[in-house]
Amino acid sequence: MLNKNIETFLGCDSNYQEAKAVVFGAPFDSTTSFRPGTRFASKTMRGDSDGLETYSPYQDKDLADINVFDGGDLELCFGDTKKALGQIEAFTAQILGDNKLPVMIGGEHLVTLGAVRAVFRKHPDLHVVHFDAHADLRDDYLGATLSHATVLHRVWDLVGDDRIFQFGIRSGDRSEFRWGKEHVVTRKFDFQGLEEVVEKLKGKPVYFTLDLDVLDPSVFPGTGTPEPGGVSFMQLLDAIRSVSRLSIVGCDINELSPVYDHSGVSTAVACKVLRELLLAVVK
Amino acid sequence: MLNKNIETFLGCDSNYQEAKAVVFGAPFDSTTSFRPGTRFASKTMRGDSDGLETYSPYQDKDLADINVFDGGDLELCFGDTKKALGQIEAFTAQILGDNKLPVMIGGEHLVTLGAVRAVFRKHPDLHVVHFDAHADLRDDYLGATLSHATVLHRVWDLVGDDRIFQFGIRSGDRSEFRWGKEHVVTRKFDFQGLEEVVEKLKGKPVYFTLDLDVLDPSVFPGTGTPEPGGVSFMQLLDAIRSVSRLSIVGCDINELSPVYDHSGVSTAVACKVLRELLLAVVK
Amino acid sequence: MLNKNIETFLGCDSNYQEAKAVVFGAPFDSTTSFRPGTRFASKTMRGDSDGLETYSPYQDKDLADINVFDGGDLELCFGDTKKALGQIEAFTAQILGDNKLPVMIGGEHLVTLGAVRAVFRKHPDLHVVHFDAHADLRDDYLGATLSHATVLHRVWDLVGDDRIFQFGIRSGDRSEFRWGKEHVVTRKFDFQGLEEVVEKLKGKPVYFTLDLDVLDPSVFPGTGTPEPGGVSFMQLLDAIRSVSRLSIVGCDINELSPVYDHSGVSTAVACKVLRELLLAVVK
Amino acid sequence: MLNKNIETFLGCDSNYQEAKAVVFGAPFDSTTSFRPGTRFASKTMRGDSDGLETYSPYQDKDLADINVFDGGDLELCFGDTKKALGQIEAFTAQILGDNKLPVMIGGEHLVTLGAVRAVFRKHPDLHVVHFDAHADLRDDYLGATLSHATVLHRVWDLVGDDRIFQFGIRSGDRSEFRWGKEHVVTRKFDFQGLEEVVEKLKGKPVYFTLDLDVLDPSVFPGTGTPEPGGVSFMQLLDAIRSVSRLSIVGCDINELSPVYDHSGVSTAVACKVLRELLLAVVK
Amino acid sequence: MLNKNIETFLGCDSNYQEAKAVVFGAPFDSTTSFRPGTRFASKTMRGDSDGLETYSPYQDKDLADINVFDGGDLELCFGDTKKALGQIEAFTAQILGDNKLPVMIGGEHLVTLGAVRAVFRKHPDLHVVHFDAHADLRDDYLGATLSHATVLHRVWDLVGDDRIFQFGIRSGDRSEFRWGKEHVVTRKFDFQGLEEVVEKLKGKPVYFTLDLDVLDPSVFPGTGTPEPGGVSFMQLLDAIRSVSRLSIVGCDINELSPVYDHSGVSTAVACKVLRELLLAVVK
Amino acid sequence: MLNKNIETFLGCDSNYQEAKAVVFGAPFDSTTSFRPGTRFASKTMRGDSDGLETYSPYQDKDLADINVFDGGDLELCFGDTKKALGQIEAFTAQILGDNKLPVMIGGEHLVTLGAVRAVFRKHPDLHVVHFDAHADLRDDYLGATLSHATVLHRVWDLVGDDRIFQFGIRSGDRSEFRWGKEHVVTRKFDFQGLEEVVEKLKGKPVYFTLDLDVLDPSVFPGTGTPEPGGVSFMQLLDAIRSVSRLSIVGCDINELSPVYDHSGVSTAVACKVLRELLLAVVK
Repeated sequence: MLNKNIETFLGCDSNYQEAKAVVFGAPFDSTTSFRPGTRFASKTMRGDSDGLETYSPYQDKDLADINVFDGGDLELCFGDTKKALGQIEAFTAQILGDNKLPVMIGGEHLVTLGAVRAVFRKHPDLHVVHFDAHADLRDDYLGATLSHATVLHRVWDLVGDDRIFQFGIRSGDRSEFRWGKEHVVTRKFDFQGLEEVVEKLKGKPVYFTLDLDVLDPSVFPGTGTPEPGGVSFMQLLDAIRSVSRLSIVGCDINELSPVYDHSGVSTAVACKVLRELLLAVVK
Repeated sequence: MLNKNIETFLGCDSNYQEAKAVVFGAPFDSTTSFRPGTRFASKTMRGDSDGLETYSPYQDKDLADINVFDGGDLELCFGDTKKALGQIEAFTAQILGDNKLPVMIGGEHLVTLGAVRAVFRKHPDLHVVHFDAHADLRDDYLGATLSHATVLHRVWDLVGDDRIFQFGIRSGDRSEFRWGKEHVVTRKFDFQGLEEVVEKLKGKPVYFTLDLDVLDPSVFPGTGTPEPGGVSFMQLLDAIRSVSRLSIVGCDINELSPVYDHSGVSTAVACKVLRELLLAVVK
Repeated sequence: MLNKNIETFLGCDSNYQEAKAVVFGAPFDSTTSFRPGTRFASKTMRGDSDGLETYSPYQDKDLADINVFDGGDLELCFGDTKKALGQIEAFTAQILGDNKLPVMIGGEHLVTLGAVRAVFRKHPDLHVVHFDAHADLRDDYLGATLSHATVLHRVWDLVGDDRIFQFGIRSGDRSEFRWGKEHVVTRKFDFQGLEEVVEKLKGKPVYFTLDLDVLDPSVFPGTGTPEPGGVSFMQLLDAIRSVSRLSIVGCDINELSPVYDHSGVSTAVACKVLRELLLAVVK
Repeated sequence: MLNKNIETFLGCDSNYQEAKAVVFGAPFDSTTSFRPGTRFASKTMRGDSDGLETYSPYQDKDLADINVFDGGDLELCFGDTKKALGQIEAFTAQILGDNKLPVMIGGEHLVTLGAVRAVFRKHPDLHVVHFDAHADLRDDYLGATLSHATVLHRVWDLVGDDRIFQFGIRSGDRSEFRWGKEHVVTRKFDFQGLEEVVEKLKGKPVYFTLDLDVLDPSVFPGTGTPEPGGVSFMQLLDAIRSVSRLSIVGCDINELSPVYDHSGVSTAVACKVLRELLLAVVK
Repeated sequence: MLNKNIETFLGCDSNYQEAKAVVFGAPFDSTTSFRPGTRFASKTMRGDSDGLETYSPYQDKDLADINVFDGGDLELCFGDTKKALGQIEAFTAQILGDNKLPVMIGGEHLVTLGAVRAVFRKHPDLHVVHFDAHADLRDDYLGATLSHATVLHRVWDLVGDDRIFQFGIRSGDRSEFRWGKEHVVTRKFDFQGLEEVVEKLKGKPVYFTLDLDVLDPSVFPGTGTPEPGGVSFMQLLDAIRSVSRLSIVGCDINELSPVYDHSGVSTAVACKVLRELLLAVVK
Repeated sequence: MLNKNIETFLGCDSNYQEAKAVVFGAPFDSTTSFRPGTRFASKTMRGDSDGLETYSPYQDKDLADINVFDGGDLELCFGDTKKALGQIEAFTAQILGDNKLPVMIGGEHLVTLGAVRAVFRKHPDLHVVHFDAHADLRDDYLGATLSHATVLHRVWDLVGDDRIFQFGIRSGDRSEFRWGKEHVVTRKFDFQGLEEVVEKLKGKPVYFTLDLDVLDPSVFPGTGTPEPGGVSFMQLLDAIRSVSRLSIVGCDINELSPVYDHSGVSTAVACKVLRELLLAVVK
């Protein structure tokens, strides 16, 4: 008697009931305006995570020691953005309802909105820490209000002023930066000031959204809109460990596009970032 | 005094007023469910059409002898399918209003719906000739009624029974084929029967939609959903020449995805097909 | 309560008990002498089979109507060929012991030996039908007797003279062809003579091994040793349907190397071939 | 005591003195106007010819039985076309002076001119058989008289009217085809009429130049200017065997561009074509 | 009434008359000795510059606020180096004659010679600032005096001793470095000493030539001769801003080869460098 | 009279007798468990080393001034690990017997074991300096004791405790790190402490094995198991120069996989590292 073929992200082989965190994929990129392909991120990461160890010499921790469940990928409707966001919100709400931590793999950055909606309903005092190359603060983009380029503005619609803290931002139009100055806290180019933010937000519920294009394209070429001048892998690991001192009530990593990752190096980076993130935030 | 840089598809350098046909790009692929990337087709074709001659030894005709205007690419809204289709419909209507032939470069196959809507308003007796690997006859796909997989069903909503003639179909689910048997004329695998259809439709207004994945993937690998077992390039050229004996009132080619065309061969095929199509239908 | 992420080849979602056939992967390519990478075939096929329909317009059959179980991939020892073959043999024997049909996805062609050993023990009167570009009849290769280049010679060690029927062969050294003339039946270049062989072998237990490089590299570039001059996709489908009239007691497809399949077209071909094979031989 | 590392095309390991034919590379592509890269053809072919057998089941002959010397690659001056052609001419003359057959691997098609100049000096009654997708009959191209697009016109300058026989031509501008009608024999699209030409040229000295883009791009994507609608691999093999019945006094294959051959299939085709060519013409 | 399709580099949509600077492409790489492909740089950059913002958070400036005209690509003669350089010189002279700043996109580095010749005629006191991985100081290369490897030596022929200032150089043969010591100022590996040079050259007319391979290949893999050990993107931005304090009378960026830029990251880098360069030098 | 085509790594054109060092390739990757392809490293490096200069501006030395012989590639048996290691050991022993320095190009890391066995027989007091991302200290891997993942454990079987000094290690399972603490000296992440080790080992015979994946994947993507977080190219050059102060009696570089190096940058890095290594250790 044999079992069906199960495929999970490295080391995320816990049962649902005993799991503290739930990893799942949100393969959606319909609003991506430049180069699509992030829909393949979660699937490719599961496959390539084989090449990784469960043990982290950075944190001296092992995925074998924590309980994470991999719920697979949502089957999202392409071309109907509202419906897709609704599916993400509902799934996240289910995980939260079972008192587990949702850890979403995008997809384009807009998927964050679905998850944040569910988390915000549970935690009305929600704060957001946002690593990204792009401000994503437009109010609309080519006429669409639901877009990868507007997602943090839509999150602001929910959480309001002074609740969003952005780091690593190095691209946007002039008006975004101006609007941002009045409504969110933006740190351009790197993670300077992160420690102060972490001190300030201690004890408050925090959603952490990590657009992997905050990394320099030399480290992470496989993304839709590469922006030279980003942070290094070691800088990102340090920043993740800082963030993990907060009360993370939901998180995601997004914008890996395997289509532009011919060498597989970007996927390897994304897998290691997810391993380190899980080891840091699942307690 | 220098002029701004103008970039057109090979030989399509007529002014708008004197043009008989208008080529334009509809770079949209938000509903693509498997592998996206057709948004880059028109742009890549313009660039690579340089490598082609304007003269066709197949038809002994030359693009230099006909007047075609290249209107560039529409700037379509990603993620909002209805809005994008509206933009395509409006632009097509403008071309038709000026009594020129619209020749659209997709994009995913759903863009055809926008163009057909405009053409149908002008020609209520419209018939449709459809070359494709896929039946595209679903009524909905993962809950979406506007999808690359439903586009011919949506066209049927407009034109009704026995107005759609499909050739080369070799993929679909069982229910699509069953539904199709009652409402459209489907020729599986190749172009057999095309001559009879051409005879029958003579004098009637015909929209011709050409999904390039009707070609075998050996000839045309650069597409979202490659389906082995397709027709050859020479078979397609012959079929286009047959179709050109009809009263074509609108046409498109679609589903080139340059992202999966590493050798550039698929783009070369698409360019040559467009050259042959223009030489055949612009009179 | 959620279930773990299950990933199977398209439509092969039966439980083990009710299954008539068992698909499994043998990701091994240690003896590949030119270009490795077939180890990734089964995994990539599972992922990309999403893009395919379960319904075949060629056979008017649907995978939804037959019971196939996907047992996942064996975890084989790289670099120790004997051990790996032993693992394959044991797993195949288990499937046969439960009276199910083993359908193996290679891997390099040597994996066939492991499966044939198990099948031969159950069916000592075993015959072998072999589609391939290469004769694979060497007695040793660079000193190794267990090699992708010797696998049919090793199979002959078991089954003996006049039990092996090769089709499509277009590469080998002169001595292989000479040796072959005395011990096996070889049809060079295509499938001519297959019908006679099928007639002759009716009722006898047959193992069917399909090296996908029998296809022309235009159709199937993603393989270790491409050999121009091969058969077309439609010729192969026809031949598979002929073979399916035999009493197939085991079968495999092998030598897809996704590493050399940048467009994904070879994987699409392999998936469709497997669908057609399953629909033809699982009764 | 060890020897330096020698690298030759498969089976071309004869010493110079005993060799009947000399293979050499002319890695030059400075005049290529669309996509360069043919400079890497000879080197890549030497490396990948490892994956091939010396034995041909098509001709039942073996490279082990004929004496061919591989002279390596000429070190040609990029950007100075005249100088490069001079180097090719001098090297070819040396081979001819030693009564051996020159077999050149291009490079772009212009390299043929260098070789033909040397051959023509030895054989003033020279005829030329030319397989190609492109007519290459322009008198100048963007102001250059020495260009891949003018090479057969330059050859005509030497040999004169009715000495050049072209097959497979499917691209050119209108004026080229018109000029060609008066000065050369052109067979469009395929090899029809080749047998008659072979009969006619029997006993006369013939230079055979084979632009590999005569093959369909599905078979041979790795070339600078792919032209859909070409011949198949088997058609080309047949045509080569026809040509080999002539008195070949020099030959070349050209226009493989490994840069656009991601799967390696085009290189495999080029290697096999060269093997078959050598087996056919070296007596 | 519609307009023809205009395609310019991001934000360079000024009319010629009101423009202060003219961007144009010099798609030439005939003398490239290792890996060609820079001919596609300007075209690819125009297409991909879509993915970029016009606003620079580094300089807090916006391309929307300056007037730059994009003159498209010169149609250069491949294979005739002298003629191509003449075309570049003539076009540059025209721009200078209209008192606009020429900003050329190569092509291989030799194109700089054409532009410098025109600029030098107008500014006989010309100095040259040169960022590069390669010294490019050979007197001839494989017999050619006009070559990417000799271009700065040719520039020295014009401007003479102590007028050329090189930074980032990390490759060359021994004799080049020796010759350089006596005739030019060379800073190996990085930009140390640039500030002093800027101070010294203040007020003098300066041509700035930027070979993008000065960047480390991790940042900029898409180039003909990658040289590990280069500068970072941020180091380059800083150096460009230093240089912009000089009286730049002409400039170019060169050596992007999109053929080797599968991920598109190198093109993204080149586009951003050009944006920053324009924002810094166009006043 | 012409000579056969000789192909060597850049500048390694000495005769065997006068050579002080012998470069050779060990193209073997049968035990690679994740992504194979290192078998192509030595061949690809020879070909691409053309693009490099023999002169090093880092060390102000020139390959033209030292005598290195390139012995080509061993023809190793794939799939029979023991036999392959025996071939490597025998060849290394021959070089050592002639009092020359063996410099091996892998292949996967396991090839080091073959070379170390020969060196250890000559130098029983052997110490090993090991740069790598991976500890490679497992005792067995999926049941195999001879594996890329166990190679340093097998080396320890020979040389014993406190003879192995590892640097740059950032991946392994927890038990490897624990075992390593008792038997070898491991420096995680970078080269800190290298100077002390060099001081300590002065005068002792040292084998230096350099797994190129110690470099960050941004610098060196073309490897089987990329591990983000590695050292920079300049850090590695510095470390090599430190190591070169020791009595190096054998060395290797390994784990370049050209299959995953689409841009060619990794091969360029490997070539330059080998040039610097040769210039540093051949005296």
